[in-house]
Amino acid sequence: MLLESLINKATQLDDITVAVAVAEDVEVIGAVIEALNRSLANFILFGDNEKITTILNVHYKDRQKSNHHLTIVHADSNKMAAELAVRAVSNNEANVLMKGNIPTSDLLKAVLNKEYGLRTGSILSHVAVFEIPDYDRLTIVTDAGMSIAPDLEQKAQMIRNAAAIARAIGIEYPKVAPLAAVEVVNPAMQATIDAAALTMMNKRGQITGCIVDGPLALDNAVSVLAAEHKGIVSEVAGRADILLVPAIEAGNVLYKSLIYFAKAKVGAVIAGAKAPIVLTSRADSAESKLYSLALAICSVTK
Amino acid sequence: MLLESLINKATQLDDITVAVAVAEDVEVIGAVIEALNRSLANFILFGDNEKITTILNVHYKDRQKSNHHLTIVHADSNKMAAELAVRAVSNNEANVLMKGNIPTSDLLKAVLNKEYGLRTGSILSHVAVFEIPDYDRLTIVTDAGMSIAPDLEQKAQMIRNAAAIARAIGIEYPKVAPLAAVEVVNPAMQATIDAAALTMMNKRGQITGCIVDGPLALDNAVSVLAAEHKGIVSEVAGRADILLVPAIEAGNVLYKSLIYFAKAKVGAVIAGAKAPIVLTSRADSAESKLYSLALAICSVTK
Repeated sequence: MLLESLINKATQLDDITVAVAVAEDVEVIGAVIEALNRSLANFILFGDNEKITTILNVHYKDRQKSNHHLTIVHADSNKMAAELAVRAVSNNEANVLMKGNIPTSDLLKAVLNKEYGLRTGSILSHVAVFEIPDYDRLTIVTDAGMSIAPDLEQKAQMIRNAAAIARAIGIEYPKVAPLAAVEVVNPAMQATIDAAALTMMNKRGQITGCIVDGPLALDNAVSVLAAEHKGIVSEVAGRADILLVPAIEAGNVLYKSLIYFAKAKVGAVIAGAKAPIVLTSRADSAESKLYSLALAICSVTK
Repeated sequence: MLLESLINKATQLDDITVAVAVAEDVEVIGAVIEALNRSLANFILFGDNEKITTILNVHYKDRQKSNHHLTIVHADSNKMAAELAVRAVSNNEANVLMKGNIPTSDLLKAVLNKEYGLRTGSILSHVAVFEIPDYDRLTIVTDAGMSIAPDLEQKAQMIRNAAAIARAIGIEYPKVAPLAAVEVVNPAMQATIDAAALTMMNKRGQITGCIVDGPLALDNAVSVLAAEHKGIVSEVAGRADILLVPAIEAGNVLYKSLIYFAKAKVGAVIAGAKAPIVLTSRADSAESKLYSLALAICSVTK
């Protein structure tokens, strides 16, 4: 399955609206226009009306007509724009939240606001879906960018969050590999102990809707041959859909190694809130921004 | 530069001898024979004389003549074979130690023996040299397999160990990137604090013969474009020769992602002992075993 198929899937969903917090940015609006061109969703742009209108008129004057709506809602400050965008999602006027020209931490403050925010009781976690050249399945990596050093309960929540995204993109019963440096439990390596505990939490019904089996090293998780070589008997080994990394450093090098060295394509969302959140950054390619939006749209639960 | 060039370099070094601890294994002897065919070094095989001779006669009967020596030294037990191999290196009868059919931990016990071992006061660390497709330099990753969670002093030693290997393969003044998930110092992320401290240890002359600059995330370390995008001013950013990972999990996923997804080639040694140590495993390709031997031979200091 290719990431392009997520775009096709997203176009078939009706009545999805994306709320963009602080939209006054050429690249952000570029991603919005591209999404409109591909008929992904309706957009509400929250921010400075004048600046947004200017960007639209200067940079995207000749944009195609779309059968989706583009609405602008003025806000006097970035803080207000973030609050209004989050409230729009809270009130079900929008189904996806997208970060515009505002620091991630400021947007997350609004997301986590106790009165109008998007809390669910779960932690927020970063879920990235990769299309890797010469590899036969989409591979989900969590968490490359949010949780610094998750504890066991947080790891369990990260699995639940990632499994929900997996199901949303058609992987009905995802295979989850909690990664470590080795595939055996080593008392000196907390990642292996947590991985074993997560496996048993899955067996005891504390983590459902997926199959968890770890610890696995990356090679055992993604290569049937490597798993067989080690004599690992596991339904997950060699066939993992979701790779749970033990800490942000491992997630970050895996993410970036896939992009920079393996030439993989990626789309990513923040999961665990009432609605998917898209946090594209300037470093993301235009293609990647579109995949992230498509992934978020596919992940909407109404 | 390609890993193949290390083989050429190794063939030009005279009088290098490799001591193999517990050599009675078809794959280990296969790697030895291949190295002899490529004129890399002399070999002394420590282990069960009868078993070694049988493997040579059954599997490698028709081997080519070599201008290098292959000697067998009988040992009554694996423990004795490991001791004799380590002693041979201690006594300068051999210059490289190679693991045969013995658990790594058993071999390292002999290496770390206080009487006859190969201690130098430094920690032992795993140094892997990668040739990554479409990337313009050899990339050294440390540590993907030895140190579980190194502290600051151990990280400093790991840099010194890796820098020595870098110089041995012709990178005179290696650029070292202590990796983290971000390129800024974050009090909640120990990897970023250690990276900053390592950078200053380099500036204050505590780590010499290389230039250290971190924290860097992997993209900033290996892509000039990504570094410029973030506005990072650094002699290392985008041009790192050595990637120091903060813990074994990050090293392990980076190592395996490069092999399995980026189709990189690799050779690796254990550095920090009086002589380079080669720890090939069954999962390594024949090519990788040869690169590791060549890397070790190039790293010999007489």
